[in-house]
Amino acid sequence: MSFHHTTSFTVEFGDCDPAGIVFYPNFFRWMDAATWHFFDASGAPSWRDASARDGVVGAPLVDASAHFERPARHGETIAIDTSIAEWRSRSFVMRHVIRRGEVTLAEGREVRVFARRHPDDPSRIQAVAVPPDIRKRVE
Amino acid sequence: MSFHHTTSFTVEFGDCDPAGIVFYPNFFRWMDAATWHFFDASGAPSWRDASARDGVVGAPLVDASAHFERPARHGETIAIDTSIAEWRSRSFVMRHVIRRGEVTLAEGREVRVFARRHPDDPSRIQAVAVPPDIRKRVE
Amino acid sequence: MSFHHTTSFTVEFGDCDPAGIVFYPNFFRWMDAATWHFFDASGAPSWRDASARDGVVGAPLVDASAHFERPARHGETIAIDTSIAEWRSRSFVMRHVIRRGEVTLAEGREVRVFARRHPDDPSRIQAVAVPPDIRKRVE
Amino acid sequence: MSFHHTTSFTVEFGDCDPAGIVFYPNFFRWMDAATWHFFDASGAPSWRDASARDGVVGAPLVDASAHFERPARHGETIAIDTSIAEWRSRSFVMRHVIRRGEVTLAEGREVRVFARRHPDDPSRIQAVAVPPDIRKRVE
Repeated sequence: MSFHHTTSFTVEFGDCDPAGIVFYPNFFRWMDAATWHFFDASGAPSWRDASARDGVVGAPLVDASAHFERPARHGETIAIDTSIAEWRSRSFVMRHVIRRGEVTLAEGREVRVFARRHPDDPSRIQAVAVPPDIRKRVE
Repeated sequence: MSFHHTTSFTVEFGDCDPAGIVFYPNFFRWMDAATWHFFDASGAPSWRDASARDGVVGAPLVDASAHFERPARHGETIAIDTSIAEWRSRSFVMRHVIRRGEVTLAEGREVRVFARRHPDDPSRIQAVAVPPDIRKRVE
Repeated sequence: MSFHHTTSFTVEFGDCDPAGIVFYPNFFRWMDAATWHFFDASGAPSWRDASARDGVVGAPLVDASAHFERPARHGETIAIDTSIAEWRSRSFVMRHVIRRGEVTLAEGREVRVFARRHPDDPSRIQAVAVPPDIRKRVE
Repeated sequence: MSFHHTTSFTVEFGDCDPAGIVFYPNFFRWMDAATWHFFDASGAPSWRDASARDGVVGAPLVDASAHFERPARHGETIAIDTSIAEWRSRSFVMRHVIRRGEVTLAEGREVRVFARRHPDDPSRIQAVAVPPDIRKRVE
């Protein structure tokens, strides 16, 4: 079975909108953070190390999507269960199931690549193959 | 042809992440704002009026997705072309094409419902049919 | 001695800017959240109860300030020690000391009022005296 | 008279909190953006150029404060009048007056330094003297 990691967040007042529910882009903010915690928890080399060694500066998105079933509100704790649903040649698919207790609130997917600063132009980034020592930790 | 509206945003320093590109949840933040501007520009009754008349408190998301082709950076101006791609019985699909000049950076879709405070419990919200005077303006 | 409460946050990738350090408005976002957690932890009536009973909708700011000594970076845990530094007739001063381990990163102050929806116009808010049952818990 | 620049922002739905008013850290987000626009409008060398030439990576904050007089709400346009109130040896004070039409909503101050990546350790930053060609444009 593949590696899973759960990251918890508290819904703060400022995460909610005038309708009194979480402003939906915050769910993507939390999914992004959950992705980083997932890799940290896997024991994969830290991003700082990967950056120093391979120039990896992050794992930018190719696609992101979420299906929202129930809203979340100020003061609630949400838990995001994160895993990798699929590996592709230069990208991979993160799956995030967001729950409040036993209740599923939302499910999201992120297709990401690993990126480094372009060797010829540090202002640009380019996709690189998934570093094998990272992949073996999380698949 | 259906109603279209373009909303422009400037990519600010604080919208970007340590990789120097827009932190992707901000694209959803801009798409949400573009949706509001789309309805305002359509001449549909204002949300404040709709709220007073129908108790509509917003148009929460059922699904949101985006495909990212190119990153955006600090100082760039992006333009979001927004339209309604599909009407369903209680929901509708917003389509957002995000460009920098002639270059397409991303394309997003939001499936939304109109929501009002639940008549029996103001702390909850419930989906309502699309108000006809709003729909006729934007389809 | 007055009531103190510590709230911890993880600095996420998306909290940081292209300089690789926390984008400073996020410190205010965390201070705001720390204020809510402070009141929750005090045993004061919940905001939901206060809202139902007194119409309190929040504790908006009159003044906010922060002095930044050291930056924070992705992956770090910060702890905010929150207390009330001063009571005034219709406002009060929150003090937040932000630390990473033993190191002080920043110190902030918020002058807040309790606000409720205006009885004659629910679209406006007005300051109210601090509810005594809240004040006695935290002073 | 010193150089002034006005930057306008639209208050979006997602900028507001469950009390229906702007979540206050967003005012600091807008003041930060106004600072960047102020320097751009001054004709000072672009940050990208300054970064390439001097290694300047930004203008991090030493102090930030704001006094809030009136709230702002969804759909309103706010204008931030930005100027430099004071020069110090290694820092400078930005002054931001935030108005909605003729009405002042808030006034903020930011004490900033120019920073570059530390020459011995690119993961750190250090304050540098204000580049003279930038200062002469904005004082």
